[in-house]
Amino acid sequence: MAKKGKEIREKLEDIGKKIIADVTKKNVPNLQVPARVTNNIVFDPKYLCYVLGDKTVTRSAGNVRHVKPLAQMLKVASFCKELVGGTKHETKRGLYYISESWGEKLKFDEQQESDNLIEDIEALIEKPREDVHIIPNPGGSVYGDLTLRFKNPAGKMMQINCLQTADGQTIGPRMCEAEIAKCNADKIIAIETAGMYNRLMEENAHKKFNAILVSLEGQATRATRRLIKRISEIKKLPVFIFTDGDPWGLHIAMVIMAGSAKSAHVNKMLATPSATWIGVTASDIKKYKLRADKLREVDFTRIKELRKDPRYKKDKRLQDELKTWEEIKKKAEQQALLKYGLRYVVDNYLPAKFKELGVKVK
Amino acid sequence: MAKKGKEIREKLEDIGKKIIADVTKKNVPNLQVPARVTNNIVFDPKYLCYVLGDKTVTRSAGNVRHVKPLAQMLKVASFCKELVGGTKHETKRGLYYISESWGEKLKFDEQQESDNLIEDIEALIEKPREDVHIIPNPGGSVYGDLTLRFKNPAGKMMQINCLQTADGQTIGPRMCEAEIAKCNADKIIAIETAGMYNRLMEENAHKKFNAILVSLEGQATRATRRLIKRISEIKKLPVFIFTDGDPWGLHIAMVIMAGSAKSAHVNKMLATPSATWIGVTASDIKKYKLRADKLREVDFTRIKELRKDPRYKKDKRLQDELKTWEEIKKKAEQQALLKYGLRYVVDNYLPAKFKELGVKVK
Repeated sequence: MAKKGKEIREKLEDIGKKIIADVTKKNVPNLQVPARVTNNIVFDPKYLCYVLGDKTVTRSAGNVRHVKPLAQMLKVASFCKELVGGTKHETKRGLYYISESWGEKLKFDEQQESDNLIEDIEALIEKPREDVHIIPNPGGSVYGDLTLRFKNPAGKMMQINCLQTADGQTIGPRMCEAEIAKCNADKIIAIETAGMYNRLMEENAHKKFNAILVSLEGQATRATRRLIKRISEIKKLPVFIFTDGDPWGLHIAMVIMAGSAKSAHVNKMLATPSATWIGVTASDIKKYKLRADKLREVDFTRIKELRKDPRYKKDKRLQDELKTWEEIKKKAEQQALLKYGLRYVVDNYLPAKFKELGVKVK
Repeated sequence: MAKKGKEIREKLEDIGKKIIADVTKKNVPNLQVPARVTNNIVFDPKYLCYVLGDKTVTRSAGNVRHVKPLAQMLKVASFCKELVGGTKHETKRGLYYISESWGEKLKFDEQQESDNLIEDIEALIEKPREDVHIIPNPGGSVYGDLTLRFKNPAGKMMQINCLQTADGQTIGPRMCEAEIAKCNADKIIAIETAGMYNRLMEENAHKKFNAILVSLEGQATRATRRLIKRISEIKKLPVFIFTDGDPWGLHIAMVIMAGSAKSAHVNKMLATPSATWIGVTASDIKKYKLRADKLREVDFTRIKELRKDPRYKKDKRLQDELKTWEEIKKKAEQQALLKYGLRYVVDNYLPAKFKELGVKVK
């Protein structure tokens, strides 16, 4: 972890060094920043996610409109360097208010400005803002035989096992970056709703499937996506995503797999391309005769968008499911499986799914 | 805990016994259910919260429109009795889908129907639905020197200290009902935003103020309100609520203190009337020269509503603050205090507040 901090500090310092070099050489100080604009967002067929292309924008002290943002970027980079050297974290909103102490010339007038600048820094140093201790809101929860080591809020090293909890461990800034001390599970199951997560915990799904359970609570937060990616990559665990049976649920899974266009500059650090969507699929609605609601106009529009989306293009299974939704014109919530009893999802539905997907369960 | 379960099971059984008694005496089976309607919601000046009045509605098997809901109530009460006897919990949504297995005559057609019935049962047995294991979504987090004992999701007794965590302990169904094994703190500080909660954890506010810190993440969930009330009552701890400096923040505090009109049938089980709102007050915005935004029309409307609300009527301090907002026409976020540095809120703002409120800090 100390090594990682050093690397980040050097990357932040490089921003300042570039400016000093310009001044020393009597060049007009300037920075090339990756362009986070629509025409520079491209789909990367290797990573299966949207990434930034090669276009950059120049922030130059020679342009009077750029002087302030350029100076603010140096100040923010310097502030982040200090944060990384310590154990404290702040939010984007916190950063905006902290800038008030930097004086009239440097302070941000709107939070949108500081938010934007933090994204520029993410793109520039090719690291997510979590790494410079500018943290997202916590959200989501993890449960299972996973031991994590981290500096606690007071900065002391601590270790916890994610079974030592009443309702799951909150995924916040320290959790999502924690060192993985021990992991006895061989897969991750991420679950859309808190209700189904509770069902799986109470039915001992973590033991039955030798899995780490993650509660997404709807669209996964950055913190949750980051933790899933890290455990999956470091421990080489496959990830399975269990959502409601509608195009929105499928897209919750897709954002974990491939990120979003808006976060093209950080998708490689947040996305888990190898993850698999379990369902509830459109076919499941038929097969399990689930109580279903009619798809609305907005759902059909969404399905049309998804069918054209490059993230879905190459996956025949997903294309087929999108077509099936259009045919059956219905959607179901994951709790609809409860009609067969509290244990059904763990005793029948998930085992059948893992078999279908060719996943061995002990 | 076992004693509590027995009491709840008896209350649920009483519902069925009443019907059996009617049948035995050859009366038309019926139930008197407290009326959860506007003209039966009254302000209780003793508890300082809205409660239900004496009006009841009769569900009678003699009325053809009542037969199905009456039968459904007996089925739900019976289902809850089973839940309480075990270690499992379900959500309101889960209950709705489970009803599918009860056959065409008993199943609910819309979730609104089963939600409504669970609220009737809450009113009838005068216990929150958490007590019959129908649980709200988790939300919020707790951090501090507090040891809780509970049955874990697998039903085994377990104990944790709320400092043994990276980012705070999630407040879910088991947490909010846990037994308080040990508590060394002498107060509770509840915080509106996750960002400020993180700031207070990292600045060791729990040690400095000998406090349990609770993250509300906006409007507090039922689970969080229930946990705050329980710790506060069992351990006789004062509660302080630290919000954004706008009428919405103040009302987040008020809902913890006095509940809402909508939940009049359970307010006594969820509200903490002795809690105190710390701020950010309207006066603080002036005193600390905080960066502030203009109040919008919707904010002014809200202030007018609050000034007439009986929950605010008797509290001169709150009335004065509402007036001050109308005068200064501005609102501030709690993070605005960060302009004075990361430690300011713990080193200066909160100590000044506790002094102003006459609270001793070691």
